Amino acid sequence: MRALVLEEKLKLSLRDIDLPLEVGPRDVRIAIHTVGVCGSDVHYYTHGAIGPFIVKEPMVLGHEASGTVLEIGSEVKNLKVGDRVCMEPGIPDLTSKASKLGIYNVDPSVTFWATPPVHGCLTPEVVFPAAFTYKLPDNVSFAEGAMVEPFAIGMQAATKAKIVPGDTALVIGAGPIGIMAALAALAGGCSRVYISDLVNEKLAIAGQYDGVIPVNIRETDLKAKIAEETENWGVDIVFEASGSPRAYDGIFNYVRPGGTIVFVGLPVEPIALDIVSASAKEVKMETVFRYANVFDRALALIASGKVNLVPLITGTYDFEQSIAAFERAASANPNDVKLQITL
Amino acid sequence: MRALVLEEKLKLSLRDIDLPLEVGPRDVRIAIHTVGVCGSDVHYYTHGAIGPFIVKEPMVLGHEASGTVLEIGSEVKNLKVGDRVCMEPGIPDLTSKASKLGIYNVDPSVTFWATPPVHGCLTPEVVFPAAFTYKLPDNVSFAEGAMVEPFAIGMQAATKAKIVPGDTALVIGAGPIGIMAALAALAGGCSRVYISDLVNEKLAIAGQYDGVIPVNIRETDLKAKIAEETENWGVDIVFEASGSPRAYDGIFNYVRPGGTIVFVGLPVEPIALDIVSASAKEVKMETVFRYANVFDRALALIASGKVNLVPLITGTYDFEQSIAAFERAASANPNDVKLQITL
Amino acid sequence: MRALVLEEKLKLSLRDIDLPLEVGPRDVRIAIHTVGVCGSDVHYYTHGAIGPFIVKEPMVLGHEASGTVLEIGSEVKNLKVGDRVCMEPGIPDLTSKASKLGIYNVDPSVTFWATPPVHGCLTPEVVFPAAFTYKLPDNVSFAEGAMVEPFAIGMQAATKAKIVPGDTALVIGAGPIGIMAALAALAGGCSRVYISDLVNEKLAIAGQYDGVIPVNIRETDLKAKIAEETENWGVDIVFEASGSPRAYDGIFNYVRPGGTIVFVGLPVEPIALDIVSASAKEVKMETVFRYANVFDRALALIASGKVNLVPLITGTYDFEQSIAAFERAASANPNDVKLQITL
Amino acid sequence: MRALVLEEKLKLSLRDIDLPLEVGPRDVRIAIHTVGVCGSDVHYYTHGAIGPFIVKEPMVLGHEASGTVLEIGSEVKNLKVGDRVCMEPGIPDLTSKASKLGIYNVDPSVTFWATPPVHGCLTPEVVFPAAFTYKLPDNVSFAEGAMVEPFAIGMQAATKAKIVPGDTALVIGAGPIGIMAALAALAGGCSRVYISDLVNEKLAIAGQYDGVIPVNIRETDLKAKIAEETENWGVDIVFEASGSPRAYDGIFNYVRPGGTIVFVGLPVEPIALDIVSASAKEVKMETVFRYANVFDRALALIASGKVNLVPLITGTYDFEQSIAAFERAASANPNDVKLQITL
Repeated sequence: MRALVLEEKLKLSLRDIDLPLEVGPRDVRIAIHTVGVCGSDVHYYTHGAIGPFIVKEPMVLGHEASGTVLEIGSEVKNLKVGDRVCMEPGIPDLTSKASKLGIYNVDPSVTFWATPPVHGCLTPEVVFPAAFTYKLPDNVSFAEGAMVEPFAIGMQAATKAKIVPGDTALVIGAGPIGIMAALAALAGGCSRVYISDLVNEKLAIAGQYDGVIPVNIRETDLKAKIAEETENWGVDIVFEASGSPRAYDGIFNYVRPGGTIVFVGLPVEPIALDIVSASAKEVKMETVFRYANVFDRALALIASGKVNLVPLITGTYDFEQSIAAFERAASANPNDVKLQITL
Repeated sequence: MRALVLEEKLKLSLRDIDLPLEVGPRDVRIAIHTVGVCGSDVHYYTHGAIGPFIVKEPMVLGHEASGTVLEIGSEVKNLKVGDRVCMEPGIPDLTSKASKLGIYNVDPSVTFWATPPVHGCLTPEVVFPAAFTYKLPDNVSFAEGAMVEPFAIGMQAATKAKIVPGDTALVIGAGPIGIMAALAALAGGCSRVYISDLVNEKLAIAGQYDGVIPVNIRETDLKAKIAEETENWGVDIVFEASGSPRAYDGIFNYVRPGGTIVFVGLPVEPIALDIVSASAKEVKMETVFRYANVFDRALALIASGKVNLVPLITGTYDFEQSIAAFERAASANPNDVKLQITL
Repeated sequence: MRALVLEEKLKLSLRDIDLPLEVGPRDVRIAIHTVGVCGSDVHYYTHGAIGPFIVKEPMVLGHEASGTVLEIGSEVKNLKVGDRVCMEPGIPDLTSKASKLGIYNVDPSVTFWATPPVHGCLTPEVVFPAAFTYKLPDNVSFAEGAMVEPFAIGMQAATKAKIVPGDTALVIGAGPIGIMAALAALAGGCSRVYISDLVNEKLAIAGQYDGVIPVNIRETDLKAKIAEETENWGVDIVFEASGSPRAYDGIFNYVRPGGTIVFVGLPVEPIALDIVSASAKEVKMETVFRYANVFDRALALIASGKVNLVPLITGTYDFEQSIAAFERAASANPNDVKLQITL
Repeated sequence: MRALVLEEKLKLSLRDIDLPLEVGPRDVRIAIHTVGVCGSDVHYYTHGAIGPFIVKEPMVLGHEASGTVLEIGSEVKNLKVGDRVCMEPGIPDLTSKASKLGIYNVDPSVTFWATPPVHGCLTPEVVFPAAFTYKLPDNVSFAEGAMVEPFAIGMQAATKAKIVPGDTALVIGAGPIGIMAALAALAGGCSRVYISDLVNEKLAIAGQYDGVIPVNIRETDLKAKIAEETENWGVDIVFEASGSPRAYDGIFNYVRPGGTIVFVGLPVEPIALDIVSASAKEVKMETVFRYANVFDRALALIASGKVNLVPLITGTYDFEQSIAAFERAASANPNDVKLQITL
């Protein structure tokens, strides 16, 4: 099977590779249609590793995918041949303690597409568990279907935030994940979402959405801005989506007494947190790891028109141009949010 | 002070009446601008009572109000003269056990505008506690400000539902409260909201909003419709907003396993509930009583444009035509949602 | 394999019957040691059915069991041969939508021991999924291990109640389930639990536990008692564990504003609920269906000594006397809580 | 009025001082009976300040108090002369946004006994709002009544932890607050609580309670111990009650996937937190600030016998020996938990 293979750090090939295609009783075989290029794919390409996950053998990239069901296993009931679908790329042990609790994303035994040593989905056909394959509503395109995975991270963050209808929020960092968190928070009940960054291009992309209020912190004192806009109360929820160490300094200034901070960004090193300031407001802090039980709700929001992810797709490449797509993604153009590859 | 007075059942006067206008240190004096006509006002007019609340003395009607601050008490800090405001019409004892818990709406000692023997606000000036008076954002009109109170009931219902982003909902009953619940649920995180009724005019009004899907149960089998649209899973949340005894029969068919029913409608008699059916799905049931801590969040949603209440204002009367407004409201025209009176 | 078989209504045999004993890769084979006699077992015996579940073929009874692992499947990691265990008798489809959410108990495809047409465990050996087999701590006896299943129902109720430390509770009905709910509520954070019934023998059994306050409603006005003991506030939580239609009449009188009612009992017919009274206090109502994710927490409470179930075991029979045990259970002696059979 | 006055850092006097004793309509006048010596009182004595709170004028110390009602204001209904009571020493503005939400403890305008410039209660008589004065049950002594305030901090931590019945917990730090958190967690639903410290005397005091398992981290590898005792899963809840910077290093190793950490201790400087480790388990973090709405529940647990605070009272002094009590408290004897002064 032809696939986009990361041979080693900085070396991509589009070549044939042996991939298992046996369809178990609860699996489906899927013709891949669209795959998004994720920051983690790019990071494996440019660094050969993410934390403890090191690319030691050639690995197929890609985990943001949509496609069409070609074959179903003997026990599959939720799907049929011809269904247009998207896939939740982490496969847990459903008998684990975490899975039984409904938090299968934090099951330590999860395997995940394009996380070493597991192959990803940038290849024409894959076999996948039906339980983690979701039918696309008729009015959701393959391109949108391949956006569900990155949007799901925003959905997980918005879900953890336990938004109360009409809450206000601040998202720190207007990268792809920050924008996804902002859109999920708005669709998920917030009245308005401030989003802060240093880069005007990113803020302009975020600011095209109704209800998203961009703030360039090179130009505006974020603390004063939030205080003024909330009558010195603070926003109900802060989503930290930059992972930048400086973002955590003074972060409790933005949130109201009794409010919530959701840490979405992943800082490389431990960061310094002022527990006394957090405690004085009894701030709650949530963390997120990928997602669980949000794909169907993400699809419902896209299908209803409450969330429009199309403007975030800033480039589309043919499968044969996959390497060019990765090179562009690696260049980190601030006008790009999401590049996609179609097969 | 001139006021719209309910002298007794079926007898309204627009006349002078003595009302206290002393401004305490934590009060504000307000020039009333707009007052909505509520179903409860109309019910006192047509029946002289609601349950245990009986009109025994002449009572000023009205409790959905906006206006302008004319004077502030010596300790008031959150408001200033000239502020455009709306008012939360229930005044609890803030030292009570319920109030200390944040559920001041269920403090047994609450007094409420136009609930016997307490006068309402259909009069040019009122004195009210600053703590329950909310500044209107600049882009929120007086007409919208007077809609905050009825919308707050929908907000309370949506808040109790603990919506998870992307949830689906069904609202039973497309009267004013049902529509408010539907709008609050959508703004509060639902992806789509089905709303059922017997009357096409009401459904047409609800159906003009994106994301609201009207279902006439004379024409459509609601159970089959919900099953089909949710892959036999059920909606996440049902808001019962009709109070009609028939609505409770089979209500657990619509909701998914682990889902929630919010009882917003108030049936006159006890209703029969099939606890076994509820238990088989572990359904949770919530009830609501007016609202607490939602006025500011309601205003935020209106100001941001996420909720547009203007199409629901189907008639506006001068103060001098107040009685005509009440007569029209009492006629229960299915094309009317909300009539307002301006002073 | 010899087993206690319900041939048909009112006809039990202790006889050989073919039962599958193939051990799959994720299964364990268990030597059954102790089995409790449950009200549902007795009901199948005396009535031949429970609601839609009708005994049409001979069925092995029993679902409250402990035993010893004899053999483990090739992929089993959480258990080893010789482990003393108890079993959670419902087996869901772990790939279902409900299971993925962590509420596998309400997965519609659950199969459950001794629920027609599924055989139970009153037989010397069974094969069962390792994921629903729990190791007994060293200081928990087989007798206690076989009490985990009925206690789990109380634990599920206490979990749903979302007890806040120090809450007060009322349990209506001092049968086995009521007592289990009372003990779980106390261990789960309540300061004290009132329990009401008509039968002094049952109340005496409940009242032997510290923190449980029995109230015979033939002698005491329960509403007045609760009002007096809670300064007219009401208890935080009511557990309805009788299923008696009369228990629902006035039930909202006992609970505080903002409190919770957990419906544990299953009334045969729909019951009349006064939604207006519930709403005036914004009461929340929860329902329970068996249990999910509570067996390990139940075992932790038993092992720590916080919950002592031994006094509730009021009779023990050898396997060969199983039919005598069922006859005694069917006699509904108010001094009996739980009879057990040892193999 | 005679009082224990902190004149300035390290200088205490027992002398007359003018204190207001006017009883407002919602106040009560109380004869103080017992006052506990708190770490914060001692810190003001030894350092003259806590963070931004600096003793600039002579200040009466003491905020953990019980006593007897001598006089009630004209509108007081919850108390009568002669009632034995304890007091919640923070007085919020009940009309504030935080108070209306039920989180009056984080109202920025709270005034608090013995927090500069507000006088405390180490004096024979005080006037206090009835809303924050709680009647002692008959079987709760004055000594126990004066323990409610420090226990309330543990209760707040246990409440924030949202304990599910049978959860396991680890408390880091066996000082007074750590022990209070452990007792509240156990009474509040935990099955067992590990408590870690470096000092055997402190661990011995904690370990005298059933269900509390002391771990000396000089002798035992805490991470290995927790892993072993929880089958490599982790405890459900960690209470950090030491405030020691080293305690935060590796803290996410102790907690299970999806678990909760409650920060009770207040580290002087910002501490380094490994957000990546927290995220990999989706750990939730809660902070606490004093307490809200827990005094009555604390009293209920003490009255029921579920919590016994008497063994923690390690010394009692007459009012005239107050300075000796403070000197002993300042000596930080590891065998002391709580010293009390009786008037």
